[in-house]
Parts: sequence; C-alpha cells; structure tokens
Amino acid sequence: MSTRIVRTQVLSATNPSPIATAIGNRSALVVLSPTVYSHYGSKVKAAIEGLPAGQRSTCVLETGETRKTLKSVEELIANAHACGLPRDGVIVGIGGGVLLDLVGLAASLFRRGIPHLKIGTTLVAQTDAAVGLKCGANSSGAKNIVGAFYPPELVLTDGTFLTTLNKRDIRCGLSEMVKLAISTDAGLFHMIAAEGALLLDPANRDSVAARRLIDRSIIGMTNELNANPFESDLRRRVDFGHTISGAFEVASGHSILHGEAVALDVALFSALSMLLGHLTQDELDGILQLHLSLGIKIWNPIMEDSDLIERGLAASASHRGRRLNLPLPDGIGQTFFVTERSDLPDGLIDAAIAIVRQAAAKPCLIRH
Amino acid sequence: MSTRIVRTQVLSATNPSPIATAIGNRSALVVLSPTVYSHYGSKVKAAIEGLPAGQRSTCVLETGETRKTLKSVEELIANAHACGLPRDGVIVGIGGGVLLDLVGLAASLFRRGIPHLKIGTTLVAQTDAAVGLKCGANSSGAKNIVGAFYPPELVLTDGTFLTTLNKRDIRCGLSEMVKLAISTDAGLFHMIAAEGALLLDPANRDSVAARRLIDRSIIGMTNELNANPFESDLRRRVDFGHTISGAFEVASGHSILHGEAVALDVALFSALSMLLGHLTQDELDGILQLHLSLGIKIWNPIMEDSDLIERGLAASASHRGRRLNLPLPDGIGQTFFVTERSDLPDGLIDAAIAIVRQAAAKPCLIRH
Repeated sequence: MSTRIVRTQVLSATNPSPIATAIGNRSALVVLSPTVYSHYGSKVKAAIEGLPAGQRSTCVLETGETRKTLKSVEELIANAHACGLPRDGVIVGIGGGVLLDLVGLAASLFRRGIPHLKIGTTLVAQTDAAVGLKCGANSSGAKNIVGAFYPPELVLTDGTFLTTLNKRDIRCGLSEMVKLAISTDAGLFHMIAAEGALLLDPANRDSVAARRLIDRSIIGMTNELNANPFESDLRRRVDFGHTISGAFEVASGHSILHGEAVALDVALFSALSMLLGHLTQDELDGILQLHLSLGIKIWNPIMEDSDLIERGLAASASHRGRRLNLPLPDGIGQTFFVTERSDLPDGLIDAAIAIVRQAAAKPCLIRH
Repeated sequence: MSTRIVRTQVLSATNPSPIATAIGNRSALVVLSPTVYSHYGSKVKAAIEGLPAGQRSTCVLETGETRKTLKSVEELIANAHACGLPRDGVIVGIGGGVLLDLVGLAASLFRRGIPHLKIGTTLVAQTDAAVGLKCGANSSGAKNIVGAFYPPELVLTDGTFLTTLNKRDIRCGLSEMVKLAISTDAGLFHMIAAEGALLLDPANRDSVAARRLIDRSIIGMTNELNANPFESDLRRRVDFGHTISGAFEVASGHSILHGEAVALDVALFSALSMLLGHLTQDELDGILQLHLSLGIKIWNPIMEDSDLIERGLAASASHRGRRLNLPLPDGIGQTFFVTERSDLPDGLIDAAIAIVRQAAAKPCLIRH
C-alpha cells in the first residue's frame, strides 16, 4: 500500500497540464479552497481547459477546522452528484490539510469510493496531510473522530504554492517536520536546524535546499506510514506531537492551529522524556531552541490546564487500544513508548510543563 | 473476503447470550430500531446484562428511508463518542436494512473504522442487507449515493424476529428472494413457488421449510458477493431489480418501499427480456404470477413515467462504468447483460410496460 507522490509544476502551461494528464479520459470535479481559488483559480481553470467541457467541474469549498465536518463532506458530495460524476470519475483536491482531508473522505464515500488526487498547497499539506491514506472530519467536538483509510491515486507536490503562504502557516508545517525529525530522523533534525529558516522567506521556499528538506520529510513520513498503513500496530512513532494536541485545538476553539498544537505537544513530551532520562538536557535544549529560533511557540497558557491534559491522554488511549502507548523521543531521531498512564510517576507531567514554561520565557533570537 | 453468517437464537436466555459471546471482552454500543426496541428491547437488555456495566450502552435510532442520511450516521457517532467507545469497541446493529446500513457506515467512519456486528430483523435484512460488505446512506436525493464497502465481523440470523413483521415487510423480503432466484438460481425459484407463501403466515416464518428458503437465499447472495466483493466487475447479476427501483423509491417520496420497487423493476425487465427473446412467454408468466400469487404488486402508475425511467437508466449507468450493463434474465436462473442503452430498440421499454400493466390487471388468486 504505497501512494505515488510526484513533484511537478502543477499549474505549468504545458499542454496537457500535469493535472489534465492525471485526470486523463475521465470526468473530474476539481475542489479548491477559497485561498487557492483567489491565488490560483485562473491557472487551475487553464490547466483543465483542455478536457472536454462536459467532463470538468470546479467548486470552492470553505475550509478551516470548524468547517471540517460531515456537513462539508455532504456539500462536496452534492457537488459531485450535481455534476453527474460517474463511478470512474475523479475528485481532485487542491488546498491545505483540511481541504484534502475532506476531499479524501468525500471520495471514499461517494458511490462507495471513487478515485481522488491530492495536491497540497500548504507546507502541512505537502509534508503530512497529502502523504498517506488517512482522511477525516471532526464530529462531536472531537478531532478526526470520523474518517477512513483511503489512499489517493496520486499526490502532486509543487513548491510554487508555498510562495503565497503566510509565516504562520509555514511555521505549522515546520512543526510537523520537526516532530517527524525528533521521532524518526536525526539527520532531518540537523538539516532543519541548519536550513529550516529558509522556508520563512517566500523567495527561498521553492529553492533546492527547501525542496531537499521537504522531500526528506515526505519520504520519512511515507516510510513510517507504509510500514503500518492501517495502524494495526497502535504504537506509531508519528503519533508523537499528536497525543494532547487535539485537545488543545478543540479547547482553544481552534484559535490554536494544528501545527501550533503539535509544537506544544512536542515541547511538553520532550521535556517529559528528559525527566525520564531518555533525552539529555542538551538534547532537550536543542529541541526547544530549534522551535524558538524558527518562531514556533512552545508555550501557551492552555498547557496549565491539567484536567484538559488528562482528558487528552484518555482520549488518545481510547484511540490506541485502551493503552496510553505514548511515543516519546529516545535521543533525537528515535522513539520509545510509555504503555500505560500509570507508568508515568505522579507530578512528572507538571514538572515537564514547568520546564517548558521556563524555557519559553528565556530570550531567544528568532529568525524571521 | 467472506462474512461469517451464523443462524442462532439471538435473544435466547443462555448465559452468556450469543450477542454477549460475540462482543466478548470489548466495549459495545448496541443500536436498535424503534420497532425492535418495542418488541425486543427488554430481551436485548437481558442478553447484554452479563457484560461489565461500563462496557455496554444501547441506543435507539429512528429509521425509514427518509432518515437514512449522514445526519443519522453522525447521530450514531455522537452516541459512540458519548459512551466512550474505544477503537477496539464494537457496534452491534439490530434492525432492518436501513438500520444495518447506517450502523455499517457509522462503524466504517468512527475512528476510521471499528468492528461491527449485524443482526437483521426483517426478511430483507436477513437475506440482503446483512449479507455482504456494503453499507450506505441517501444524499442529494439519490439512494445510497454515499457508503462504503465495510464487512461486518459477524452476522447473526434468527427467524424469531420475523414472527412480528407485517405482511408488507415480508413481501419486500420475498421480492428480493425472487429477484435472486430469477437471476441466479432456478431451484430457489421453484422452491419459492412451492413454499414461499409459508412466510406470509407468522406461525410458519421460523419453520424448517421457511429456514430452508431463507438460508438458500443467504447462501446464494453470499456466493454472488464473494465472487466480486468490491464490484470491480460492474456487470453484477444481483443488480437485477436494482436498475430503476431507486428512481421509483425516490420519486414516490419513499411511499414505495425498497422491496416493492425491486418487484416493479423485476417485472418490467423480465417483460423486456421476453421481448428480446431471452424468456419464453411461459417463463415470463411464471415470474409475474409468482409475484401476484404472493401478493407482491408488479404494477404502479409511476411506471408510466418514461422520463423517470430514462433518468433511472442514466443514473444506473453512472454507477456501472458509464455503461448501462443491464442485467436481464436469460431463462430463469441465468442472467445476460445489455451493455449500452442504445442496444435496446426504440419503444421496447414501452412495450414491456404495457405487458406488465396488462398482466397486473388480470384476476389472480393471492395467497394471504
């Protein structure tokens, strides 16, 4: 079970365009986020202009975590049905993580599953959401509590899209890359430390060095997912940063973005790992400093809500075979797991929180 | 890909009950239709009483085609989330076809898929909906336009449930059985002709003869589905009776039930098959008379709406690889396919409609 991921110039003026080539002789519904529509709408239209008129439709889907719902999925399905998309038609999603998750879920449900293509336009989407089989939506106040394992037919990656992102969105992507590096790839960690700030500058986001960072993240993530595509093994290294981040997002009313919540989760559990003797003080400092130097926040007052953290731990356990199965860094680039909540000594989480709060308060040179 | 189907006394007073045994050491949400709740609610509660209190919840879900929606699926998911159902929890559906389809879809989506058990309580559910991998919901005014291929872990069948059904529901099940017989199993056709009326009498619905009929239908349906579980072959014999039936159901505002629409579809396309020389006049008479003698209607004025029929044909083609791929009886027990709409001569559908209308108008002894 492996998804084909191709780096290409998605909106290039070649005829046929990469999108048209991927669609081929099928009917297609192309779904754009409002942001993608405003920046690239006319180019997307041009890219599918060569397809027969009756076989191409486009629609714009509102995004954002609060719109990541089955209602939005149903809206997409209504569009697919209205344009007469047949069972061998294809849905093409062009947007960020929320849009790609919704497109994947709609494709998995429409006619009990039709093909779909994913084109991620944010750094999070390119390195995380577009990679792998998972799609999902929020329901009952819980993040991604509904969804499917549904592989896209093809993923197209194009650094051009990154040039129009704001820094907040770039930092969300960098958080996911740092999380992957800490839990699986020390080399990537050092690369991000050396060159990650490049991505903060729009002019450098599609540079050779930036592509190298992004491609290494994509390959690393793909390898992790391919080894355990349907999560039959509930001890997943890439769950690092995703234990209580969902609880932070929901409790903040999604004012904390996903990548931002991941960074808080990574900081907290890295400190915990140091307290358990699995990271040295220097390694922990390196992790926290890397975040701070990239302008990624490691502290939010929400982290002082210990009830919220306990609820987040319990919710994760419900999703991980009723065991905590908490991934923690074991040095940089390796992971070990804490199996049960009761394996964590009393007061240790509070101590980890105190460490992060203190580190966040220190002055640090932030690269912009 | 084969579903385990077990005939048992689901609500028997054995300890543990068959339901409790199937749930085992897991948390369970048991979902009942209002009808099942009113007839069997206390017995269901007794059957799961032996499970630990924190690990069993029940809920009642409104059913009916108009409630077969993603909104109902989301209601089920809210219940699953509220009772803290973990990833290794199980959803147990006890009810008719609509309830089982909704339960299957909710199970496929909750936490990206958790196990589920199906216990069909209607004849349609036992011979059709509970068999196989498909679940679904209606959306955009289209039947089952959303859904998944998602096999239940186990199907339990119990004839006791049939004793409280009304005749209309029994006839809906008989329609599905007759459809299967015509398209795949001449022996079953003759068995239904000889003994199908038994099922109309509550006292005989769980008799040895009735079980023989039902079990042969279940096995026949299972064999058809197992050979093509994900419908990679779009020419499916069991699509017989399901070409324009969905259009009839929707156009009637669901006053025509699914099994009733199947019978109209079967009658119309059997007549068409006779006109194409694939059924003798005697075989067609046998098919129509079998329906009439069981009190199954083969005629409804909605069949005179030729625009509706054309839209139904087009919708089926969208779902069958943009080709009509129309299954028609080739003698009783065999099927052939008409590939394209244009392969059907002009006026032939109208002629088939006239034949059915005429046959329906003849006096016939209906067995009650």
